Amino acid sequence: MKTLEARLGRLLTEKGLTLSVVESATGGLISHRITNVSGSSAYYKGSITAYSNEIKEKLIGVKAESLLCFGAVSHEVARQMAKGGRRALNSDICIADTGIAGPGGGSDDKPVGTVYIAIADTAGTTSRQFVFNGTRAQNKTLFAEAAFDWLVEHLQSI
Amino acid sequence: MKTLEARLGRLLTEKGLTLSVVESATGGLISHRITNVSGSSAYYKGSITAYSNEIKEKLIGVKAESLLCFGAVSHEVARQMAKGGRRALNSDICIADTGIAGPGGGSDDKPVGTVYIAIADTAGTTSRQFVFNGTRAQNKTLFAEAAFDWLVEHLQSI
Repeated sequence: MKTLEARLGRLLTEKGLTLSVVESATGGLISHRITNVSGSSAYYKGSITAYSNEIKEKLIGVKAESLLCFGAVSHEVARQMAKGGRRALNSDICIADTGIAGPGGGSDDKPVGTVYIAIADTAGTTSRQFVFNGTRAQNKTLFAEAAFDWLVEHLQSI
Repeated sequence: MKTLEARLGRLLTEKGLTLSVVESATGGLISHRITNVSGSSAYYKGSITAYSNEIKEKLIGVKAESLLCFGAVSHEVARQMAKGGRRALNSDICIADTGIAGPGGGSDDKPVGTVYIAIADTAGTTSRQFVFNGTRAQNKTLFAEAAFDWLVEHLQSI
């Protein structure tokens, strides 16, 4: 059984597409897994881990008013991260995540384990919300797994 | 026994310093490990995984002629990555790596397992070369471990 990152690499190679990543909640884990695949430099441009709002604004172009109005953990900011990351990292596809791995930072509206993931490509930008119920380490793993799952599904559909 | 990333977090907090990372050979693993520590957002700005030369030049300001003359895997490029990353990610300290995790990409001069790591801070920029002898996954882990080791040692000395 191939890993998700190996399946992803094969799909990107078949379709001749390049990928970039903007991570917040997963903190680098998605990029780490992509680069575990030997030869990934052929389709992988790189990533930005936008752990602070400053980086989200400065390097990716997330709007300060969106961070204020919707919060860093929101559909709107996830979409801006994917769209801005695709431009900044000059790739065909960009996947982004923003969420709360915990144990701190949760609220009634957005409990620990909440993540928003967005995919941007030439066809546009879409986002999904997921809520998991793990420890910090488990949530990071589950967020990354959800991102890989969706990205593979997305690539199979285009 | 605390993990290296937890010790690193404690040292940065004690000294009131912020950190950023520019990764190439480790592909996101250093950033992933830093963000495994709960509360790391207090001292961690974020990272750039500069997997392609294009990203090294465009986002971090590595000079095209340095990539050409010294190669992407060199003391010179590691130092430019740390210095440029510190500026781009606006942190007190930046650590960068560039190397060959393998299995491809090695040469007589720079065999698989070679990595250059650089640290930039207000005092300047220094780099070190390490050569390991593992599989791709092992080399990524060893590169990250060497980076954390040195960074902890560096913080203890300032």
